Amino acid sequence: MPLGIPAFLGTAISVILSFKLNQSYDRWWEARKIWGSIVNDSRTFVLQLQSFIYPVDQHSIRTISFRHIAWCHSLSRALRGKDGAAHLEEYLSEQDMLKIQKQNNKHLAILQLNTLHIAKLREEDKLNVFSHVQLNNTLVNFSNAMGMAERIKSTVFPVTYRYFLHLAIYLFIITLSISLRDIESYFEIPLLMVISAAFFLLEKTASHMENPFSDLPTDTAMTSICNTIEINLKQLLGEEKVPDVLTTDTFYIM
Amino acid sequence: MPLGIPAFLGTAISVILSFKLNQSYDRWWEARKIWGSIVNDSRTFVLQLQSFIYPVDQHSIRTISFRHIAWCHSLSRALRGKDGAAHLEEYLSEQDMLKIQKQNNKHLAILQLNTLHIAKLREEDKLNVFSHVQLNNTLVNFSNAMGMAERIKSTVFPVTYRYFLHLAIYLFIITLSISLRDIESYFEIPLLMVISAAFFLLEKTASHMENPFSDLPTDTAMTSICNTIEINLKQLLGEEKVPDVLTTDTFYIM
Amino acid sequence: MPLGIPAFLGTAISVILSFKLNQSYDRWWEARKIWGSIVNDSRTFVLQLQSFIYPVDQHSIRTISFRHIAWCHSLSRALRGKDGAAHLEEYLSEQDMLKIQKQNNKHLAILQLNTLHIAKLREEDKLNVFSHVQLNNTLVNFSNAMGMAERIKSTVFPVTYRYFLHLAIYLFIITLSISLRDIESYFEIPLLMVISAAFFLLEKTASHMENPFSDLPTDTAMTSICNTIEINLKQLLGEEKVPDVLTTDTFYIM
Amino acid sequence: MPLGIPAFLGTAISVILSFKLNQSYDRWWEARKIWGSIVNDSRTFVLQLQSFIYPVDQHSIRTISFRHIAWCHSLSRALRGKDGAAHLEEYLSEQDMLKIQKQNNKHLAILQLNTLHIAKLREEDKLNVFSHVQLNNTLVNFSNAMGMAERIKSTVFPVTYRYFLHLAIYLFIITLSISLRDIESYFEIPLLMVISAAFFLLEKTASHMENPFSDLPTDTAMTSICNTIEINLKQLLGEEKVPDVLTTDTFYIM
Amino acid sequence: MPLGIPAFLGTAISVILSFKLNQSYDRWWEARKIWGSIVNDSRTFVLQLQSFIYPVDQHSIRTISFRHIAWCHSLSRALRGKDGAAHLEEYLSEQDMLKIQKQNNKHLAILQLNTLHIAKLREEDKLNVFSHVQLNNTLVNFSNAMGMAERIKSTVFPVTYRYFLHLAIYLFIITLSISLRDIESYFEIPLLMVISAAFFLLEKTASHMENPFSDLPTDTAMTSICNTIEINLKQLLGEEKVPDVLTTDTFYIM
Repeated sequence: MPLGIPAFLGTAISVILSFKLNQSYDRWWEARKIWGSIVNDSRTFVLQLQSFIYPVDQHSIRTISFRHIAWCHSLSRALRGKDGAAHLEEYLSEQDMLKIQKQNNKHLAILQLNTLHIAKLREEDKLNVFSHVQLNNTLVNFSNAMGMAERIKSTVFPVTYRYFLHLAIYLFIITLSISLRDIESYFEIPLLMVISAAFFLLEKTASHMENPFSDLPTDTAMTSICNTIEINLKQLLGEEKVPDVLTTDTFYIM
Repeated sequence: MPLGIPAFLGTAISVILSFKLNQSYDRWWEARKIWGSIVNDSRTFVLQLQSFIYPVDQHSIRTISFRHIAWCHSLSRALRGKDGAAHLEEYLSEQDMLKIQKQNNKHLAILQLNTLHIAKLREEDKLNVFSHVQLNNTLVNFSNAMGMAERIKSTVFPVTYRYFLHLAIYLFIITLSISLRDIESYFEIPLLMVISAAFFLLEKTASHMENPFSDLPTDTAMTSICNTIEINLKQLLGEEKVPDVLTTDTFYIM
Repeated sequence: MPLGIPAFLGTAISVILSFKLNQSYDRWWEARKIWGSIVNDSRTFVLQLQSFIYPVDQHSIRTISFRHIAWCHSLSRALRGKDGAAHLEEYLSEQDMLKIQKQNNKHLAILQLNTLHIAKLREEDKLNVFSHVQLNNTLVNFSNAMGMAERIKSTVFPVTYRYFLHLAIYLFIITLSISLRDIESYFEIPLLMVISAAFFLLEKTASHMENPFSDLPTDTAMTSICNTIEINLKQLLGEEKVPDVLTTDTFYIM
Repeated sequence: MPLGIPAFLGTAISVILSFKLNQSYDRWWEARKIWGSIVNDSRTFVLQLQSFIYPVDQHSIRTISFRHIAWCHSLSRALRGKDGAAHLEEYLSEQDMLKIQKQNNKHLAILQLNTLHIAKLREEDKLNVFSHVQLNNTLVNFSNAMGMAERIKSTVFPVTYRYFLHLAIYLFIITLSISLRDIESYFEIPLLMVISAAFFLLEKTASHMENPFSDLPTDTAMTSICNTIEINLKQLLGEEKVPDVLTTDTFYIM
Repeated sequence: MPLGIPAFLGTAISVILSFKLNQSYDRWWEARKIWGSIVNDSRTFVLQLQSFIYPVDQHSIRTISFRHIAWCHSLSRALRGKDGAAHLEEYLSEQDMLKIQKQNNKHLAILQLNTLHIAKLREEDKLNVFSHVQLNNTLVNFSNAMGMAERIKSTVFPVTYRYFLHLAIYLFIITLSISLRDIESYFEIPLLMVISAAFFLLEKTASHMENPFSDLPTDTAMTSICNTIEINLKQLLGEEKVPDVLTTDTFYIM
């Protein structure tokens, strides 16, 4: 068989693979951006509570901020397919824990608690109407970030591309090996193995990055991000006890 | 015929196909994003009603929220080319049902009902002016999402690309088969079939993804999303009767 | 001449063509998005007028809405290079018609009339300050959409790419025909014709899509969109006489 | 030398060139969008002044609008590396001219004058607080557009790509000419010249588009845009003397 | 070995390299945009302070503006991995210096000081509620820009692509050198060296641009940008002593 056929197949694979890499990377980067915006809005949220609530009500600020930390942890766990209500006793009151058990979507329930708490502050006139609207915008951002992460989690990338790529790579290897029959075999075997390994590796990386909330090494580093949020928020609140910065022995940060 | 001609044709096909895949994917992903933003704004909408209406008016909150669920179902049905006013008795009063019959665009009519209801709450002073403006922004988001989905639905992707691709693929198969006359035919036939099948499959996938509101398997999963919205909203409202999470026996979620 | 030269030229053409297709498509799709946002904002505009003006002033709402329909038609005509002040008697008072004659930019003049009318409603206290600001935001959106469409209309796509593509396609055909001298001529002629036709067709499509406001079949369907806006707005206003949905005998919708 | 080497080089050049074309086009298009948004916001600015200042103060509206026209001309000149304070006597008072001499960044100084003028109108209660905030948003848009244009102007595109492309094109020409030794030379020479000329032309176009504020033919047409803004604003103000639409004898519009 | 294999490898490298160049450029350009928005918002911030604080309180405006300049320098240093609290005595009071020592994230601490200072101005009624909300929006922009820069800094680009590219380039060189055995060696050696050098150079450039906050020549020019901000802000404040424009003897601006 002339070498043109595997060469052409290789070009086709490169082009389609490039398309897939781009889309996977976009999903992965969008996931990272969503969590980046959660970090930003979380800090903004505490700064707004501190600057809008008047007369100052440290107890409410602390309760709402801790509930927000719970929201981050809950969302992070839910996206990884774990129980969104676990390990939240540190941040939530018992009463809150009971309320969120009633809803399927735990992090939405926590967000509702904070929204209603802030509405109560407004009723008690500790917030003026404009500050209420402003805080509400920050809550809307949390709702959007939450929904965007769920969208990425729940939308399956069309599988046709994956099947096409697998088929094309197999075909490429087969036709290439037939074309190379004339070359000395002690050279041909490692070459084929390396090229096919490289293609499958790239395809695998793309497939993993497509699902940035799947408890894999290429995952968005949500545990580490939630840790950063917790440290930042507690230091903004002037808390004494702050968790350590998450360090890791392994290569990837989760 | 030298093998260079089909090889070149194959490269040209790959490049143009890659362009088409990108655009189709963008349309499909934009469609998914639009419905994702509808999910987010729907939750925000109920949270805002609960936190802005004062003194609390549970009846109005419930009526508006149910009308909003009707809006989601109606938009979903209209985008799939079905009657947008069907199966809404569960969520709308008889009076509302009569009113929306008068307009061509059923979901726009439902949105108008909610907008006017909220304006009435403002007149009755159950909403302050700022909350009114804030809720209005959420309604503007619904109007935008609705219009964006209609835009994707109604804008035909230029057909020239499709014709070019079909022509090029046929030409590719013909020239390739002429070039391969010298190879043993028991190998040539399946190779040709597999490559041409792969190209047509990819082109077909792209064409389907271009129209993400067409009642096809690659469709945006609007029925499932509307179900999620209904569950989330009813649980936020504290309703007892909540529909089950939509499960499916088939591979694709509609 | 070896076949490698036309093959290489073909690849170069595909890559540059792909770049041009992407940019043209982006312009075309942006033009469509601009008109999509005009549809959304037009509906929002009427809903806001109905929900903000208090006590209700049906006459003003109707006048402003009809003037807005005139703005859509005028913008659509101006973008197609026709007189922006023609056929507007149905929607504008005689007084308005006189005023817009004084300005070069007819649709900007209509927008100014609506802006000042709404400011007058504010002075008469039929609008509170917040609603005024909110309506003003919608007017800003119209001003932006208008300017964005004018930008696409007035910015010429760099012509170098077009010259390069034409040159490369001609060169490709010439070198290919020289390379194919050895093949039987009854096969070579149609092959060359089909490939060159396909390239020129693609290039032509791209060039047309670059200018989405040029009264061509690939044009943005502005007449149809203005018709939709007119129907939607009149039904939201409860008007009896509503124009028919635009149907077309020809393939393309203008 | 086998033809495969220049062919491969040609493909590599096409791919990298395509990357460079995309980025250059994006910079050029972003520059055009920035000036498009300045057009939109300028019109909005005058409409807002006319609808927000109450009781109407024609003198202030005129002074601020003319100062804004001066800002456009000043920014346009500064981006082209000329003196930002020249030829502004027509639009600015002598007092203003003196003030802007003290700052390095002339257009920023003009923007500060307008911001403080509007703050003075607020103090004199000719603007309510909400309109003040709204006008401030428009001023923020001007500040952003200004900064974005300066960013494009001051950020050098990484030169590595350019060196790579030049090197690769030279290498391509050399290897191609060696490979083509066998072909009759009266055909080889023009072919080489045309292909290399085409590549260098494309690379040149990309390099020019990278710097859209450099007083070159591919420049953003800032003089023409400022002229449009001046005409639009003066007609909105009802001025008698309006400059002519800029026509040009040369191919490109500056 | 036939030349087709290295040629195919070269094409695959070009395509994957093109993907990597695009993503790296996007990260680099996003980093530049973030700092561009910091420039814009910094100017806006001072203009807003000057136009919103009433009665005018020059001392507060100066303190907040200088603290903001400190924030810029601190963020710039922290992103380059240096101590974010160094060299700030010029801009911050001793009291402020003590407060920021308590937090890990120095620039976040500075932002908190400004947020609380502005909240105090609101309490003292030197700011009305709307201006407070408006200034708060500008502070939210700073918080977002800060978080976005930290995101780019902390997110590692997937290393698989890099490994693939290195492997493929090595393989390409090896197979190419085997294929070229027949050509005279005095030509083969420099050709191989130039092509491989070009590929590694491009890959290196991409890798550097991926990390735009790493104290490298391709770094975002943060020192120069902070200098510009300092000059602009001090001139807007009417300060006598303004730092010189940063000039540089070396090729790159840091």
